Amino acid sequence: MIKITFPDGAIREYQSGITGLDIAQSISGRLAQEVVAISVNGDLIDATRPIITDSIVKLHTFEEKEGKHAFWHTSAHVMAEALEALFPGIKFGIGPAIENGFYYDVDMPNDTVLTDKDFQKIEEKILEISRGKHKVIRKEVPKSEALDFYTKKGDEYKVELITDLEDGTITFYSQNNFTDLCRGPHIPDTSYIKAVKILSIAGAYWRGDEKRKQLTRIYGITFPKKKLLDEYLIMLEEAKKRDHRKIGKELELFYFSEKVGLGLPLWLPRGAMLRERLENFLKKVQKEYGYEPVISPHIGQKLLYVTSGHYEKYGKDSFQPIHTPAEDEEFLLKPMNCPHHCEIYKCKPRSYKDLPVRFAEFGTVYRYEQSGELHGLTRVRGFTQDDAHIFCTPDQLKDEFKKVIDIVLYVFKTFGFEGFTTQISLRDPNNKEKYIGTDENWKKAEQAIIEAAAEKELKTKVELGEAAFYGPKLDFMVKDALGRSWQLGTIQVDYNLPERFELEYTGADNQKHRPVMIHRAPFGSMERFVAVLIEHTAGKFPLWLTPDQAIILPISEKFNNFAKKVANVLNISDIRTLIDDRNEKIGRKIRDAELKRIPYMLIVGEKEEAENAVSVRRQGQNDIGGMPVDAFIKLINEEVNQELKK
Amino acid sequence: MIKITFPDGAIREYQSGITGLDIAQSISGRLAQEVVAISVNGDLIDATRPIITDSIVKLHTFEEKEGKHAFWHTSAHVMAEALEALFPGIKFGIGPAIENGFYYDVDMPNDTVLTDKDFQKIEEKILEISRGKHKVIRKEVPKSEALDFYTKKGDEYKVELITDLEDGTITFYSQNNFTDLCRGPHIPDTSYIKAVKILSIAGAYWRGDEKRKQLTRIYGITFPKKKLLDEYLIMLEEAKKRDHRKIGKELELFYFSEKVGLGLPLWLPRGAMLRERLENFLKKVQKEYGYEPVISPHIGQKLLYVTSGHYEKYGKDSFQPIHTPAEDEEFLLKPMNCPHHCEIYKCKPRSYKDLPVRFAEFGTVYRYEQSGELHGLTRVRGFTQDDAHIFCTPDQLKDEFKKVIDIVLYVFKTFGFEGFTTQISLRDPNNKEKYIGTDENWKKAEQAIIEAAAEKELKTKVELGEAAFYGPKLDFMVKDALGRSWQLGTIQVDYNLPERFELEYTGADNQKHRPVMIHRAPFGSMERFVAVLIEHTAGKFPLWLTPDQAIILPISEKFNNFAKKVANVLNISDIRTLIDDRNEKIGRKIRDAELKRIPYMLIVGEKEEAENAVSVRRQGQNDIGGMPVDAFIKLINEEVNQELKK
Repeated sequence: MIKITFPDGAIREYQSGITGLDIAQSISGRLAQEVVAISVNGDLIDATRPIITDSIVKLHTFEEKEGKHAFWHTSAHVMAEALEALFPGIKFGIGPAIENGFYYDVDMPNDTVLTDKDFQKIEEKILEISRGKHKVIRKEVPKSEALDFYTKKGDEYKVELITDLEDGTITFYSQNNFTDLCRGPHIPDTSYIKAVKILSIAGAYWRGDEKRKQLTRIYGITFPKKKLLDEYLIMLEEAKKRDHRKIGKELELFYFSEKVGLGLPLWLPRGAMLRERLENFLKKVQKEYGYEPVISPHIGQKLLYVTSGHYEKYGKDSFQPIHTPAEDEEFLLKPMNCPHHCEIYKCKPRSYKDLPVRFAEFGTVYRYEQSGELHGLTRVRGFTQDDAHIFCTPDQLKDEFKKVIDIVLYVFKTFGFEGFTTQISLRDPNNKEKYIGTDENWKKAEQAIIEAAAEKELKTKVELGEAAFYGPKLDFMVKDALGRSWQLGTIQVDYNLPERFELEYTGADNQKHRPVMIHRAPFGSMERFVAVLIEHTAGKFPLWLTPDQAIILPISEKFNNFAKKVANVLNISDIRTLIDDRNEKIGRKIRDAELKRIPYMLIVGEKEEAENAVSVRRQGQNDIGGMPVDAFIKLINEEVNQELKK
Repeated sequence: MIKITFPDGAIREYQSGITGLDIAQSISGRLAQEVVAISVNGDLIDATRPIITDSIVKLHTFEEKEGKHAFWHTSAHVMAEALEALFPGIKFGIGPAIENGFYYDVDMPNDTVLTDKDFQKIEEKILEISRGKHKVIRKEVPKSEALDFYTKKGDEYKVELITDLEDGTITFYSQNNFTDLCRGPHIPDTSYIKAVKILSIAGAYWRGDEKRKQLTRIYGITFPKKKLLDEYLIMLEEAKKRDHRKIGKELELFYFSEKVGLGLPLWLPRGAMLRERLENFLKKVQKEYGYEPVISPHIGQKLLYVTSGHYEKYGKDSFQPIHTPAEDEEFLLKPMNCPHHCEIYKCKPRSYKDLPVRFAEFGTVYRYEQSGELHGLTRVRGFTQDDAHIFCTPDQLKDEFKKVIDIVLYVFKTFGFEGFTTQISLRDPNNKEKYIGTDENWKKAEQAIIEAAAEKELKTKVELGEAAFYGPKLDFMVKDALGRSWQLGTIQVDYNLPERFELEYTGADNQKHRPVMIHRAPFGSMERFVAVLIEHTAGKFPLWLTPDQAIILPISEKFNNFAKKVANVLNISDIRTLIDDRNEKIGRKIRDAELKRIPYMLIVGEKEEAENAVSVRRQGQNDIGGMPVDAFIKLINEEVNQELKK
């Protein structure tokens, strides 16, 4: 008999050799139908593999990340079988599960290009194989046998992959008529797959090397229920409509120029003004919380990053050093603001009485990403962090953490990110030597984060061993209107940089001490935040933030002058107002303004002019009615105040 | 007889072979005593050289730049003679006139280090030689003779210099016992030099090459009157007190870190906030004038600068290209914002109805300077331009120019730069092929600038041939409180970049046209402007701009609580207020606040607390008297409004 420990701490005894599926069955028949993979002592494995020693076991359904991973990995194999049946002679590269579904890189026979019709055929074939309820069988194979198998099959890609593997580590997985080189884990059999969609194809160089053959990458997604697929496809449609790249272009917020360079956004006037409003919003809050602005250059000597340790860790994969035409100097584009802020801390001696100091900078940083990884404003090569670094004594850590949490929560509330989750990442208590900083300081910092989160009533997940080597942290994940998760906001303790930069303060004991450093960025970056905000709101920004707050729609050209007068009054009152003075019917003007997502439409005609009034219509809603211009100014100001209320 | 034309257009006839001195004498004996050099047909020459053809002649006294140049150049020779007399075996490098005085790079015998006592001896020797009234005699010498002279003398530096010269171009100048290799021009004789000061010494590598010998650079200055030297030394003392590097440190505005890199300023909190106020000041004005903000990255593909032409022209002497770790890309740190703004212009088609567009950006740019050239905030490697580019039709040019002039004049008025001068730089009408752009457009642009300047009643100097190859310009020079000139503010027309970037708009004729581009920066750069402002005001900034507007000085600790209450009220009212709650006598607190240049001191004691009032004292002045806190808020707001009035 072996002892199985469950996540809730319960322990049950089973026969040695029992599988995850058997364990699920012993709990409930329904659970057994849903479990697709298990974790044994932290390792993700097949639910059908025997367990032979005392173990900690977690059962995973499709609901969980781990379950989805196994489900989609098996689906990739089934798609491969379907492709082989439909396109004899096809050769296979790699076929992993990804965040949403899976793909397979294939070498199509005769360079066949797949069409929508092919997509449908592949889907049908996948479902046909799935219905066969074929068991997915794992087999450990010697390297020679593995090489032999694929050499005979004539699949040179797999041969190349196996050549790089060590003997004794190689496993095959088979279902029905198809065998694949694979680490697993996989779901018990193919019948779990009930719905499939082939999503798209793209070119992908073999092993990411542009000098090698370009293969066809086929993306797909599967689900254990048809209903889940339908929901996913609707979400996908909606996400397409909300794509920040599309809306950003429509609203003229930002633009990418090929000549300037990939991943380097140009903020157009409307976007630059929106970003400035966002920055001012945060500046105001930060000022209240005692932050002080600083400004640092976008380059630093290589020595700065050798000191911080970044050069050793990331130098090779970063934008390369900038040489000077004389004097043999080397500079780097700054990938983060912290080393500069450490140097600012050092501009004069500090006493414990001066702490905490909080340096804030909207600092633009540059990080190299491969061009293929770039995506709109969410993956760029240059971005502006809403960065700040707090330097404090260990005793001040908890209070500072709580204040940062307050700011983050205020940001989420203001932008309507309601369903957020938080994770506290602590060090692995069994591997303390992996981390820098004294035991005492780590305990103090971890305790400070845990207590601060508890006192702020955050529902947190605590993860051991997820801390950075330089300190524990608290991360915030928000869910957008489509239920997608985004990481926004992070608060991080750092013992490393104060050590490396030899930061000091004089304590009450008149001795030198090291301050603790907190890194924090409630938005993450201006680029990422604006992208997420666009996708979350579908471009309908909060009233205080949106580029155009009101548009005046004269019923006919006769009222254009009155419209100008009203627009002038509103703009002077800092209400961002446009006029639609085209010679168009009022219905058309209303429809166009609706499409432009302008919150308030102000219709003016004879009656309005006579009464110095406007007839107000809220975007996406009906008429609110007529009111004097002054009353409208009051209305809009009250709405803005309401939005920004703490 | 030859005809001599004077600057006022008058023409007089003289014997061929007449000298500048003779001409001066023919006008007035006093003038003859003051003329130290002349220009003949634009070439600066000795006042003692014969003129043999019809010429345009300008006579220069010490008052003029050209006169000073000759005066100080001769002084360098006299100093060299004095040095040779005092330190036999000394060898000479180069010894030019500079903006304020002159220097000589010398190789001291036995590496003697000069002391203050030596300075005095050198000064005495110079005056002794000067009093000798030795004529300064020019002689053309063949290269072989020149080489021979210095080889015999054993001065290897001069030998090296002569080796690089072409035969037939070499001249010697001699006075008394000293002969120097020199192009001239020089003053007639040494007796003009009536006062001298040896200012300082510094190390200087021979020919600026750090691999060669370090020579001693000896700086000096001379004047034709003792009184002028006394005034200069007083000004120098005052300038030292106003040195922006010194005041910037005292006021904690900015800081340079060796680790971050030379010439890369870090703005400390008080400086960053001051800079933000400056930026907001300009943003507000620019918004009124229809400018739109944009934000562009700090790097651009090399291609961007190949397109703009900057790479070809400046690439070799700039920060070198940034390579990517993969994909073989090359980027450059942006040395200016215009290419990025051209790409923003191109983000969509433009019609004549959309013009002018005005893109403004506080854009940080990076330009390589040799480390020896760096100086505080005035010569840096990274700086933020208050940049904007206006794209307009040729017909709109004059109006746009006038609006830019308005902004520049408002800036000068607000900061108290009263004695400014302007220069219009036009193309050389005899060398039209040197310039890009059609004849018609140049005429239009030059006319536009001249008319705009006239309509704005600027007193302008027009300089032919001083335009950039890409367009004419208008420059503003301000005089600071010590009478020193600084170039601030430039407005430049550009036909080149619209051409190179193929910028277009659709005209009323439905045809494609090229817009004209205007570059302008009223401050020049934030760094330079802040430096000039510090030196101009000695750190006493205008009230609206200064870091701390008021400081509350409680008479004793008993009133610290009331002081806090008042400070709170003032800070909420956006009046930047400190408290001096140290246990010090009120007299000491007042003295310290005076030194910190805080405009308002608010003394509070029993009477003030009882009346919720403050006793107000203006920095550098006397008591203004007691007033309720509200009245003080009103007073300060009114003063700020007055300062910012247009």
